Amino acid sequence: MAKMKTVVLSAKWDPKKGFKLGSKDIEEKLTYLGSQVWRNPRLSIEENDVPEIGPTEVLIKVKACGICGSDVHMAQFDEEGYIFYPGLTAFPCTLGHEFSGVVTKAGKQAINKRTGKRYAEGEAVTSEEMLWCGSCRPCADGYPNHCERLEELGFSCDGAFAEYIKVGVRYIWSLEELRENYSDEDIFLAGSLVEPTSVAYNAVIERGGGIRPGDNVVILGGGPIGLAAVAILKRAGAAKVILSEPSKSRANMGKGMGADYIINPLEKNFREEVLQITEGMGAKLYLEATGLPDKVFPDIEQAIWQGKQINSTVVIVARSAKKIPVTGEVFQVRRASIVGSQGHSGHGTFPRVISSMASGMNMLPLITKKISLKDVPENIIMLQTNREECKITAVLE
Amino acid sequence: MAKMKTVVLSAKWDPKKGFKLGSKDIEEKLTYLGSQVWRNPRLSIEENDVPEIGPTEVLIKVKACGICGSDVHMAQFDEEGYIFYPGLTAFPCTLGHEFSGVVTKAGKQAINKRTGKRYAEGEAVTSEEMLWCGSCRPCADGYPNHCERLEELGFSCDGAFAEYIKVGVRYIWSLEELRENYSDEDIFLAGSLVEPTSVAYNAVIERGGGIRPGDNVVILGGGPIGLAAVAILKRAGAAKVILSEPSKSRANMGKGMGADYIINPLEKNFREEVLQITEGMGAKLYLEATGLPDKVFPDIEQAIWQGKQINSTVVIVARSAKKIPVTGEVFQVRRASIVGSQGHSGHGTFPRVISSMASGMNMLPLITKKISLKDVPENIIMLQTNREECKITAVLE
Amino acid sequence: MAKMKTVVLSAKWDPKKGFKLGSKDIEEKLTYLGSQVWRNPRLSIEENDVPEIGPTEVLIKVKACGICGSDVHMAQFDEEGYIFYPGLTAFPCTLGHEFSGVVTKAGKQAINKRTGKRYAEGEAVTSEEMLWCGSCRPCADGYPNHCERLEELGFSCDGAFAEYIKVGVRYIWSLEELRENYSDEDIFLAGSLVEPTSVAYNAVIERGGGIRPGDNVVILGGGPIGLAAVAILKRAGAAKVILSEPSKSRANMGKGMGADYIINPLEKNFREEVLQITEGMGAKLYLEATGLPDKVFPDIEQAIWQGKQINSTVVIVARSAKKIPVTGEVFQVRRASIVGSQGHSGHGTFPRVISSMASGMNMLPLITKKISLKDVPENIIMLQTNREECKITAVLE
Amino acid sequence: MAKMKTVVLSAKWDPKKGFKLGSKDIEEKLTYLGSQVWRNPRLSIEENDVPEIGPTEVLIKVKACGICGSDVHMAQFDEEGYIFYPGLTAFPCTLGHEFSGVVTKAGKQAINKRTGKRYAEGEAVTSEEMLWCGSCRPCADGYPNHCERLEELGFSCDGAFAEYIKVGVRYIWSLEELRENYSDEDIFLAGSLVEPTSVAYNAVIERGGGIRPGDNVVILGGGPIGLAAVAILKRAGAAKVILSEPSKSRANMGKGMGADYIINPLEKNFREEVLQITEGMGAKLYLEATGLPDKVFPDIEQAIWQGKQINSTVVIVARSAKKIPVTGEVFQVRRASIVGSQGHSGHGTFPRVISSMASGMNMLPLITKKISLKDVPENIIMLQTNREECKITAVLE
Repeated sequence: MAKMKTVVLSAKWDPKKGFKLGSKDIEEKLTYLGSQVWRNPRLSIEENDVPEIGPTEVLIKVKACGICGSDVHMAQFDEEGYIFYPGLTAFPCTLGHEFSGVVTKAGKQAINKRTGKRYAEGEAVTSEEMLWCGSCRPCADGYPNHCERLEELGFSCDGAFAEYIKVGVRYIWSLEELRENYSDEDIFLAGSLVEPTSVAYNAVIERGGGIRPGDNVVILGGGPIGLAAVAILKRAGAAKVILSEPSKSRANMGKGMGADYIINPLEKNFREEVLQITEGMGAKLYLEATGLPDKVFPDIEQAIWQGKQINSTVVIVARSAKKIPVTGEVFQVRRASIVGSQGHSGHGTFPRVISSMASGMNMLPLITKKISLKDVPENIIMLQTNREECKITAVLE
Repeated sequence: MAKMKTVVLSAKWDPKKGFKLGSKDIEEKLTYLGSQVWRNPRLSIEENDVPEIGPTEVLIKVKACGICGSDVHMAQFDEEGYIFYPGLTAFPCTLGHEFSGVVTKAGKQAINKRTGKRYAEGEAVTSEEMLWCGSCRPCADGYPNHCERLEELGFSCDGAFAEYIKVGVRYIWSLEELRENYSDEDIFLAGSLVEPTSVAYNAVIERGGGIRPGDNVVILGGGPIGLAAVAILKRAGAAKVILSEPSKSRANMGKGMGADYIINPLEKNFREEVLQITEGMGAKLYLEATGLPDKVFPDIEQAIWQGKQINSTVVIVARSAKKIPVTGEVFQVRRASIVGSQGHSGHGTFPRVISSMASGMNMLPLITKKISLKDVPENIIMLQTNREECKITAVLE
Repeated sequence: MAKMKTVVLSAKWDPKKGFKLGSKDIEEKLTYLGSQVWRNPRLSIEENDVPEIGPTEVLIKVKACGICGSDVHMAQFDEEGYIFYPGLTAFPCTLGHEFSGVVTKAGKQAINKRTGKRYAEGEAVTSEEMLWCGSCRPCADGYPNHCERLEELGFSCDGAFAEYIKVGVRYIWSLEELRENYSDEDIFLAGSLVEPTSVAYNAVIERGGGIRPGDNVVILGGGPIGLAAVAILKRAGAAKVILSEPSKSRANMGKGMGADYIINPLEKNFREEVLQITEGMGAKLYLEATGLPDKVFPDIEQAIWQGKQINSTVVIVARSAKKIPVTGEVFQVRRASIVGSQGHSGHGTFPRVISSMASGMNMLPLITKKISLKDVPENIIMLQTNREECKITAVLE
Repeated sequence: MAKMKTVVLSAKWDPKKGFKLGSKDIEEKLTYLGSQVWRNPRLSIEENDVPEIGPTEVLIKVKACGICGSDVHMAQFDEEGYIFYPGLTAFPCTLGHEFSGVVTKAGKQAINKRTGKRYAEGEAVTSEEMLWCGSCRPCADGYPNHCERLEELGFSCDGAFAEYIKVGVRYIWSLEELRENYSDEDIFLAGSLVEPTSVAYNAVIERGGGIRPGDNVVILGGGPIGLAAVAILKRAGAAKVILSEPSKSRANMGKGMGADYIINPLEKNFREEVLQITEGMGAKLYLEATGLPDKVFPDIEQAIWQGKQINSTVVIVARSAKKIPVTGEVFQVRRASIVGSQGHSGHGTFPRVISSMASGMNMLPLITKKISLKDVPENIIMLQTNREECKITAVLE
């Protein structure tokens, strides 16, 4: 059996006191509450079998795979040794879920959505990270981001920091339309950015309802999701794209992605800046992508309250357990709303992100560093403290 | 000049310390912040001139006019004598804005929306309370509930606790289609309920996005707006309409309006009840109509979190300055949203409420007491303490 | 191996001259163009093996199964012996797709959407007829009615005119919530009507965009789909539900389902009637369910043109290859639109239809005759000429 | 009283045989059916009084005004001398409705939507052409494009081919935000293009529902509306903007406005081209802007039928009385729809078009020729035959 190199995260199953196995948890193996259970995480390069594929799966030779914040949090641990990452995890597990590659083998019923025929070898592809079941009530109703029996690539089953990965065709999307405008390497770098870009697209277009050309928008937080949202909303015709971000380097990246204005919220009054830039209107869409909603929400609310814009939508995309203090009256008087956003699957999001990239939406500047597979562990560790890099991406031959 | 009886509220212009005249306020006359300015309110029956109408106005002989909570709050005052009502007010002012009547005179360009012709005498009509300008940005964009230069009938200009009232045709809606299924008196009683019913309709149908037949809904608060929402959502095909209301008499009225289940939130666990009634689903729409959002929101959030329903919408219709503690994660995981609702104008709301009433949506049980015009002042005072009556309505000959 | 009785349709593979095998057709077995290929259809009662289930399937003991117009058209043939039914077919095949029954066996991963657990024996269920793949682009995007690799129960794989049927859990919906308000027999009769009711629901609610309470609607054609639409739109709060249908008996059924007005289009002027009934407004939604769009569309267009209603939607649900003559100007001046509707899957339609039935939407009057399984063939034949019966339903012990 | 030069169209009231005065027509003066009534049109430069303004009006010094196709059709006549233009007209009338200028006088209640204060002298502005009443049912419901008592600038009341024009503030929109990125002259040239651009915006964004970034679109017809739609949809993030237009010069302008592909429908097979360009998908939105819907619709339908795209919308914006042959089945199988579009008012369209222009959507290339006011008549005549010019615009000092 063929062998391959992989980046594996291992940890010890050692539940905190009081932890009770959930109905879908599996003793010693899988939990929906990672940080309650897993201790002493270790990253290592291992040699594993190249996976066998089933009839509706393809084997993909990985070409590029980016490091995500959740990869960092799975390897990061508190003083008692428990991992930071709070969600679905099953260790040991090959990490990596923001990836692209080429199909090297296809099951008999592994149909390519693009062609309606079985996948051909050499097709450039990317994949969703969320392995939705397609059968539960949310899936049947068309909301796979809210699948009741989700598996996750690189979290609960083996991911793409590896030479090969197998994935069901349901989750695979062709990158072939990138070939016209991208170099051979860039196809795969861009392809590895489809997943995080789709998280942002789902937030602002699907959940936020999009905008009409000529609307103003404000993005709070210049991490990968916030920066991708800048590019998407600029692409969607926003008149003024405003990014609120204290870090200079992130602010600069925001400009590169299309932000028209930057607010440093630590130095300036957010509300005043927003109202001045928009000549008193405020924004149609506010994206909370900082993870500090309790901190930034009062500012958003003030901008809505004092701006002339009605029908504003606040989209919450960053995760946080913090309570957000909301003044109902502001949302009444300004006809405003708040929506939560999760996921990247369904709703035609992946293919539209790819088509947008193919026709000129350039996400490549998000990648600030390219590494090889063997350097993934040390870079994951390094990102626990580094705030300068945006996306570090492993490039495979 | 003909004379008529009216119910007038007078008060003294005596701004609290620190109050500053707003840009649209008028010294001694009109303010957007009533409770900061008006002192020692007095209700009286006065004899006034029957109003003269302009070319696009009609003169309406009032047939019925209900007492609204805001009428009560304008006449109610704190220990220093300042009125409770916090909003737009210009005293002295004839109160009354939930009314119906017959047209007795019509200006030359007073066109009836129903017929496309000038209003005929005898047409049964009701009116919006919000006198939107039709020219500001929100009005021009189609959102008259958010008019920047609003006047309000019975608040900043003379209302309908009077024998006659003049109103611009823009705000008038015919009640003629009620004639087929309502008695002569009931046409006008029903007509006086169109305004509060439209506030509820705007909240659940326009702002809440309505429901699909078969969805479950929860209404929190059995005041007139909550009760009207019960009837509307039952009418819209809700599978299970659940009303959360501690008062027995209000709960009973809720059943009469179509509620399938009542929860007494003081005696039972709201979340558990909702989940049990809906067999674990929860509701598609939650209407906050209690005015205590800080109290009830955590319960709503728990029902959303633990229910299987995704895409829930929480509509905030009752006014409150309290902060609502929102957990973004709940709204992400459950694909949920929060919207604020204000007003009753625009969006085809009034005519649809009237058509719904004409074809079987019976709102009359909301009226628990009928009085004559001269009894209005004492009943307004009585409602400062009484919690048993729902809608008290003045009936005029 | 256990045996069971089934109603099988057989026919001869004998393509018409010029027919070319399609890319998804299978020689001698399956075609997407039935009427081009199948000759000399025969219905027979046969003894077949009770099916074996896979891990995500359940075995259902059939309790009720209705005859659909397409069952009739598969057995009906032209003068050269070719069947009428033009679509996907693979003979021999057990017919029957409007059914309900109880689960008697469940695969290991056969999860019940209602409970989140494996199906228990005895659960009352119904099923979608469309076996969408869950993996093609339309399925992944949330539009299973437009699956690119559809199979159909009772057309291309064995259906429910049989003692048992196996179905994948993805397509199964529980009927347990009917137990409270339906007798044991009626649960299954109602359950067998969920599929056709869902076709109507998909047409008027999902594709037509639904209505707001107080809107008027017109249904053209009182077949099962039209009649179901009458009930659904009445349920959704339509002010006036108008059914246009020339047959007396169908018109009477329409009244039973909730129609407020009947128009006999052969005796009266459709446009005049619609405008008179609606006092000059016309309707918000027109459903073309006659199959004669070329005949009825000009009337619909005239009603839209002369009515005051703007934003009307015409939904085409009945199949027809006829050209419809559309006047763009009418749709411009009246801000109107036309949408096509197909299918019943996805969008939460099945569960909402079941919840509507559970809470009072009574579809049972659609069933005008109950028969036993062995009488299915003769009744299918009889329906080739009979126009009086609405739904004939086989009831199994 | 101050005098000014104006371009006036006069004609003789001489109704065709059989013409009957409509309910809103005025003998010898105004009709809704121009081509049935007006004969022997004459264009002349006249000296008229500078208009007096009312309290909610402003006087605008015109700076630029474009010639529209309807201006041409009002001056063009058939062999019997009747004008081509079929709609609302009241002659003699100063023509011109695509204009911009500066406010020189403002009524006491002439509030600027931008500032919330009375208009200041010197404010750069443009205006809607449709003078909606704000009081009829469609206006009250938020659909001013379908006003029942519309007046039209430059058709039924004096337009902007004049040194001054008065307009109610309801219809006026500030151009001040163009100042940052446009030269003094270009502000007004761009401003004169806001009206036609808004017709296109209303068609594709408001009525067509817009697109999501990454969708493909096809525009049929490269007249001013089609070309504006190209720019808007490119701005909205379309992946591939395809313009179908036989004229070389129009095709070139299309490329300038952002079209990625041009199809010459006289030389190539439209369907094949669309499917090849989009790699078999087809388009999400098709805009019929040719005025020949009977000719082009079958091609659109074929592209929808054979493409993989579901949910396509066909927007009809060009006027034509021709019947369009629609195959319902195509719209069912592809989940497609057809909508009619009319007008440019409401829905926040004008301000969003202006904001889009201010932030980079350059419409100026639409103007192919600049003339002075006195040359307007001859250029209107010239455009009866010339097909090379796009927009000819009068520039005033």
